[in-house]
Amino acid sequence: MTLTNQELRDRFAPFISRRDADRHINIFWETQPSAFSEPGKQFIELSGGMPHTSFFPIESMSVNILTAPGSTDTINVPITHETPSSLALKHTLQYALSEGFQPLIDFVRAFVTRLGNVPQYDPSLWQCLIANGSCDSLFKIFQTCTDERSVVLVEELTFVPVISNILATGAKVVPLKLSMRDDDQGIDTTYMEDLLANWETGPYAAYDRPKFLYTIPTGQNPTGLTQSVDKRRKIYALAQKYDFVILEDDPYGYLKFPKFNHEKPMENPYISTEMTTEQYARDVLMTSYISMDTDGRVIRFETFSKIFAPGMRLSFVILNNFFYEKLLKFQEITTRQPTGISQQIVYSTIHAMAPTKNTDDVIEAWLHWIMKLACSYTDRRNVMLDALYNSEAYKRGLYSVVEPSAGMFIIVNVNVDEKRAPVIQQMDELIRVMDKHGVRAILGYKMAVDREFSKDHLNFFRLTYAYADNHEQLREAVTRLSDSVVEYLA
Amino acid sequence: MTLTNQELRDRFAPFISRRDADRHINIFWETQPSAFSEPGKQFIELSGGMPHTSFFPIESMSVNILTAPGSTDTINVPITHETPSSLALKHTLQYALSEGFQPLIDFVRAFVTRLGNVPQYDPSLWQCLIANGSCDSLFKIFQTCTDERSVVLVEELTFVPVISNILATGAKVVPLKLSMRDDDQGIDTTYMEDLLANWETGPYAAYDRPKFLYTIPTGQNPTGLTQSVDKRRKIYALAQKYDFVILEDDPYGYLKFPKFNHEKPMENPYISTEMTTEQYARDVLMTSYISMDTDGRVIRFETFSKIFAPGMRLSFVILNNFFYEKLLKFQEITTRQPTGISQQIVYSTIHAMAPTKNTDDVIEAWLHWIMKLACSYTDRRNVMLDALYNSEAYKRGLYSVVEPSAGMFIIVNVNVDEKRAPVIQQMDELIRVMDKHGVRAILGYKMAVDREFSKDHLNFFRLTYAYADNHEQLREAVTRLSDSVVEYLA
Ligand SMILES: Cc1ncc(COP(=O)(O)O)c(C=O)c1O
Ligand SMILES: Cc1ncc(COP(=O)(O)O)c(C=O)c1O
Repeated sequence: MTLTNQELRDRFAPFISRRDADRHINIFWETQPSAFSEPGKQFIELSGGMPHTSFFPIESMSVNILTAPGSTDTINVPITHETPSSLALKHTLQYALSEGFQPLIDFVRAFVTRLGNVPQYDPSLWQCLIANGSCDSLFKIFQTCTDERSVVLVEELTFVPVISNILATGAKVVPLKLSMRDDDQGIDTTYMEDLLANWETGPYAAYDRPKFLYTIPTGQNPTGLTQSVDKRRKIYALAQKYDFVILEDDPYGYLKFPKFNHEKPMENPYISTEMTTEQYARDVLMTSYISMDTDGRVIRFETFSKIFAPGMRLSFVILNNFFYEKLLKFQEITTRQPTGISQQIVYSTIHAMAPTKNTDDVIEAWLHWIMKLACSYTDRRNVMLDALYNSEAYKRGLYSVVEPSAGMFIIVNVNVDEKRAPVIQQMDELIRVMDKHGVRAILGYKMAVDREFSKDHLNFFRLTYAYADNHEQLREAVTRLSDSVVEYLA
Repeated sequence: MTLTNQELRDRFAPFISRRDADRHINIFWETQPSAFSEPGKQFIELSGGMPHTSFFPIESMSVNILTAPGSTDTINVPITHETPSSLALKHTLQYALSEGFQPLIDFVRAFVTRLGNVPQYDPSLWQCLIANGSCDSLFKIFQTCTDERSVVLVEELTFVPVISNILATGAKVVPLKLSMRDDDQGIDTTYMEDLLANWETGPYAAYDRPKFLYTIPTGQNPTGLTQSVDKRRKIYALAQKYDFVILEDDPYGYLKFPKFNHEKPMENPYISTEMTTEQYARDVLMTSYISMDTDGRVIRFETFSKIFAPGMRLSFVILNNFFYEKLLKFQEITTRQPTGISQQIVYSTIHAMAPTKNTDDVIEAWLHWIMKLACSYTDRRNVMLDALYNSEAYKRGLYSVVEPSAGMFIIVNVNVDEKRAPVIQQMDELIRVMDKHGVRAILGYKMAVDREFSKDHLNFFRLTYAYADNHEQLREAVTRLSDSVVEYLA
């Protein structure tokens, strides 16, 4: 069966919220180009409330970009009102289309195609929509898709602003158990399958069946867990069987590491194997949900926050034409367009990394940058895990560690004695001890969707190795953490 | 009576939507600074999922800014991870507070204070919230404040994306008649007063009384109308009497012009009087609603789109503490933070315009830039009005003109013969003739909230003088418009 736009509409109309039906958009400007053509005469626009470019205080700019993370070598990238001609300041400083600038759309589309992060159905039926941060796009998707009747499945520990956004639409969230076993990371599919098979007799029988799964499949926030490909296939099959849409939020997917080697803690295959971009794409990166999608039921969120800079507030969404139209219209009347200057800087920087403007070269150069980032993160992950395993508290059995193979986070489960006091109280006390020792982490229980449901997972801290100044500081931080735990528990 | 935070809460709680009540925000991170202080030791953060600054591909940048609109003289503004120390790249590239960066908040606050665009009540009870475009903030305000029970008064012709956003919350919009008389521009207060005095027996008796007025008081979009100070006082008094909140959307307020001089069409007092910033602030700028506000009932929207560049997607909102908290929390879980790099560039550019970093000097310099813009717009307005008055179609009485004294727009009312065909049909036909002549404008009827209500105002085009390349092109555009109208009507 080949999909069509009409089929997408029929198929996914039931996944649209009451709220979206109220969202009528009057485009008051003409969207068709004029047919006017008279030799020597220019068509004159008196329509858009757009300032002439000479009214912008910026004449030109230049960005000094690094050739590798942490390096001191720079390349100077000039940007003027006219150059680069594909995307120049006179356009990016101006009001522009809500979908983003075409050259950037083309680039991200080529990029995700190169990595296979694209659906299996007809390429004319899906789009890349440029947006201003995954957080905002997730908000907009839930506004578009969920209302009082909707149920969304989520990981029991998750990125909580998303939960606020789901609840704000009136929808219900249903947590899914997470497995933290090294050989089975992420959503517990046995639990999930059972829940779905027996929905009407299960704990959420009062709710409708779920229409959405929100998941962070790689380097999950806060747990650092990464779902295996097998698990993803199982979950996609469940999505087909029970007909729900998968919202794949993947800000950490590119920061993927080889497994931690306990024998050689500092082993880093990015360096030792002189990894190529082919190897990275094939052997290191995970298979995404969108790459399995034959039905149009996966919406994938990627962001430049973690691989470029959060202050750009730039991201994109990969989705079928039906959802695309909805999200685009919503952007049109709210944020209007992803920040032009961010699109300019991200586009210009990435293109300046390449020796030519050939798209393949640009993709290759950008992948090199990303791999160097992933390599640095691998080092940091190694340092922190090594420090944790060698810490006093670990040796005394006062905490255990869940090993991440992607992202920015490691969680440490503290072996608090539940008989002594409620777990949350103890974690609150412990974080005050840590404060005294000069280190801070995120209290895991604050990222639980339902504390009762996750009562066995309230005793952890989320640590990040992303922000420390250097490896030494990471080791020092772990020492302070360990000292705090020893002081508190021993 | 002096206001307090508690009073603001009690007063304005009824102005909050059902939807907002569903918006619960879990802050999972610690917001208090640590008390840790040990000599020679640094506190270590393992909390935020923030990349270390060395992972950002941008080492530094520089912006060449213009010294005056249209000038070719530039000043080079270097920006690095460490400088300017008040707002440097290492902060603006990173995740940051949703309210915006403090130095920028301080600046806009000082700026609006200098111009008197601040409420009359205790300065500790209101805030400036940095945001990413007025369009998005208006969307957020309506999401926060209106629902199925709410009624919003709007100008009968207005910026239509806002209407979409109001309707999407389930609220009703009620159009207010506009007066287009030269000596009485904007909302028809006789109509308005009558409507409010007799609401329960009027055409909207089925609706609750209005809780909000959305208005564009200066250089209104699409009509170009500017409300007199008297009119504003009357409307503010009505807001007090009938207890509604005024949403003052003022993107064009700074682009304020002296009245058009029919004797000397090109007269431009910005030039001829060598106007000072004092004169501009005192004699040219309009008194804003917020400056009259003693009760906390005005929310004012300002944007950098028209005075800096739309591609920055940067704006701010002036509002009382109660509404501020609501809007801030909404930003927190959606757009998260106004684009950092935009805050950086706008802040750095404005500060580079001044000879010193003294806030008064910076304000003075920024006002100079704005006045030069307003001066150029005055010229453009003069050119277009002059061309319109001298056009064939005008002389033949085929259209009339509403003279703007602010903003970017002039409207031309075409004297179509209503007996010939429906007005909308004729306007659609006319715009196709214009297309053939090589000129385009906005069809006014597309900006009507209710076409039946505005049946006498469907026959206009909105022209902008903002976007043309030069005065010659403006004149040429008017000639083409005139030719089209003559061809169609004569
Ligand atoms: C799971 C997850 N989704 C989304 C985001 C936010 O992404 P963005 O910066 O693109 O809004 C984050 C970052 O904190 C995250 O951890
Ligand atoms: C009345 C009005 N409000 C708001 C806006 C949008 O402002 P911003 O660019 O800050 O979103 C415009 C510009 O088109 C406008 O005309």
